[in-house]
Amino acid sequence: MNTTRLDHLWKRGRDFLGVHYPIMCGAMTWVSEPQLVSAVCNAGAFASIACGNMPPDALARHIEETRARTAKPFAVNLITIAPNYDAHLDIAVQARLPIIVFAGTIPKAPDIEKAKASGARVMAFAPVEAIAKRLLDYGVDALILEGMEAGGHIGPVAGTVLWQQILFKFCDQVPIFTAGGIATGKMMAHLLMMGASGVQLGTLFVMTHECTAHDNFKEAFKRADARDAIASPQFDSRLPVIPVRALKNKGTNEFGRLQLELLKKLDSGEIDRETAQLEVERFWIGALRRAAIDGDVDQGSLMAGQTVGLVDEVKPVTALIEDLVRDAEAELNRVAESL
Amino acid sequence: MNTTRLDHLWKRGRDFLGVHYPIMCGAMTWVSEPQLVSAVCNAGAFASIACGNMPPDALARHIEETRARTAKPFAVNLITIAPNYDAHLDIAVQARLPIIVFAGTIPKAPDIEKAKASGARVMAFAPVEAIAKRLLDYGVDALILEGMEAGGHIGPVAGTVLWQQILFKFCDQVPIFTAGGIATGKMMAHLLMMGASGVQLGTLFVMTHECTAHDNFKEAFKRADARDAIASPQFDSRLPVIPVRALKNKGTNEFGRLQLELLKKLDSGEIDRETAQLEVERFWIGALRRAAIDGDVDQGSLMAGQTVGLVDEVKPVTALIEDLVRDAEAELNRVAESL
Repeated sequence: MNTTRLDHLWKRGRDFLGVHYPIMCGAMTWVSEPQLVSAVCNAGAFASIACGNMPPDALARHIEETRARTAKPFAVNLITIAPNYDAHLDIAVQARLPIIVFAGTIPKAPDIEKAKASGARVMAFAPVEAIAKRLLDYGVDALILEGMEAGGHIGPVAGTVLWQQILFKFCDQVPIFTAGGIATGKMMAHLLMMGASGVQLGTLFVMTHECTAHDNFKEAFKRADARDAIASPQFDSRLPVIPVRALKNKGTNEFGRLQLELLKKLDSGEIDRETAQLEVERFWIGALRRAAIDGDVDQGSLMAGQTVGLVDEVKPVTALIEDLVRDAEAELNRVAESL
Repeated sequence: MNTTRLDHLWKRGRDFLGVHYPIMCGAMTWVSEPQLVSAVCNAGAFASIACGNMPPDALARHIEETRARTAKPFAVNLITIAPNYDAHLDIAVQARLPIIVFAGTIPKAPDIEKAKASGARVMAFAPVEAIAKRLLDYGVDALILEGMEAGGHIGPVAGTVLWQQILFKFCDQVPIFTAGGIATGKMMAHLLMMGASGVQLGTLFVMTHECTAHDNFKEAFKRADARDAIASPQFDSRLPVIPVRALKNKGTNEFGRLQLELLKKLDSGEIDRETAQLEVERFWIGALRRAAIDGDVDQGSLMAGQTVGLVDEVKPVTALIEDLVRDAEAELNRVAESL
């Protein structure tokens, strides 16, 4: 495949990740495990093992299994607010992974130093402008800008705005990868022209043969429109909800009812704030596993980006990447001719 | 100003709107009145009078006043669900305006025909893919794709996704203008490269000298971050809320409390659904006027897009447009050299 224009635009992303295609498969809990991660890396792209809150020895085993399946570089994606986070960081550092991704909250400066001291390059998520600036001050090596149209845990700002606030301003300073809402090679091409060093996709990688998510999960993705992937709303500042984008189903409805019930009980003094908050946090525990592994698409959490409206077939990882690359190169050629 | 590359890319948008710069000032109720509309048109761009639900004779007067201030083309933006909508359509048709914009819901086929029979070209908003297809079937002459990052009444899908679902697929068929989240000439340049015939901005035009919005309103925009412009959440399907993006303030908090109160009363049978819905709809009546005209930024509705995080000065309309055009042309040149 001729990729002359792409080669030029994404040289920096390639060099940074140490891969042929700077296309990242975003870390998805229960989904980004050795089979999918190694398939993506073997296809020439890049992926991260999703640590979620797995037991530390499971993470060590996942790293080992992935290494058994691929000789290519991959990363782990640490959730700074996970109870097992400290142990995860230790394992990633001991494993001498080439890249460590911090997600969740802003990582502490000593944790970033620790990761870098192991030889890893550090990437972190910037969901708003102020956090991007802070991460650059902390010496993060690359940023991932994820717009709120993404799936799973999301920030409050759309990609369009983040690209103008952060990508345009800081892309000369560090490699920046854009995430959220990307489902076509054309879009990828335009983001590279905007200055991105590469892109990160999640929803599209769910729709691959190598992804171990339950068939019901993939079928739900096929049927869904973009507007079906909704962010969980917070009803009251007394009950903070970390927004998650997932497909509407019985579970999301019940979560709404739960919040209303809890607020009613809070108002009447029947329960205290802490108890209410605990119930909110407990509601979704295990829900992603129920959907992605057990195939319960009614009550489980069908985390999905709005790009779910653009996917309607399941294909091999290699075909997905080839399609993206071919369409992107064609788009770059079209734009070059139009200018 | 040299605009060779822009001239080439936006020829179609120019011809369609009959203007020098196919940059549209989106219709903002209480804000898009004769002074701002005429200033935008006299600067070579395009604007629409926001009909909102003004008395029909006020609309006729607005059209007259705008014509007294500019010889350039402009449009009216009709809200299909406004009680005065039918009268507004009649006035627009009688005034023989060159373009009529339909907003709100999908316009009825006979209304589109009526508008076209008057000699007007018809534009309509496509907030999701299915509506875009329907509008094209109905013979709409151009589409406006507005992502959920926009201000005021918004759809459920982000711009990124709409561009892939609609712009990439249908831009050869009709001129498509993109709206929501656009605050820089660079972004405008990239949207033109994606196939847009032009762009529509709202929040940026609030921040002009010619905009008659209250100084408090503009000051609130200066201070706000992107994440402060939130969409009003719907708490329960029994109480539908048409989502509006506006800056968080006392009013948005109280709207949340109101929904909780009403749902509690609904559950206890204290009120019926119709009464509750009426209260929801009444809450914001007059709120935009309170904010934009009276300057009450605590209780009023500060409708704003997420681009509010990118604006920090008030400038003349001509300067705003010149900045956009200069930055866009520079970006096109940069991209052309990078390919």
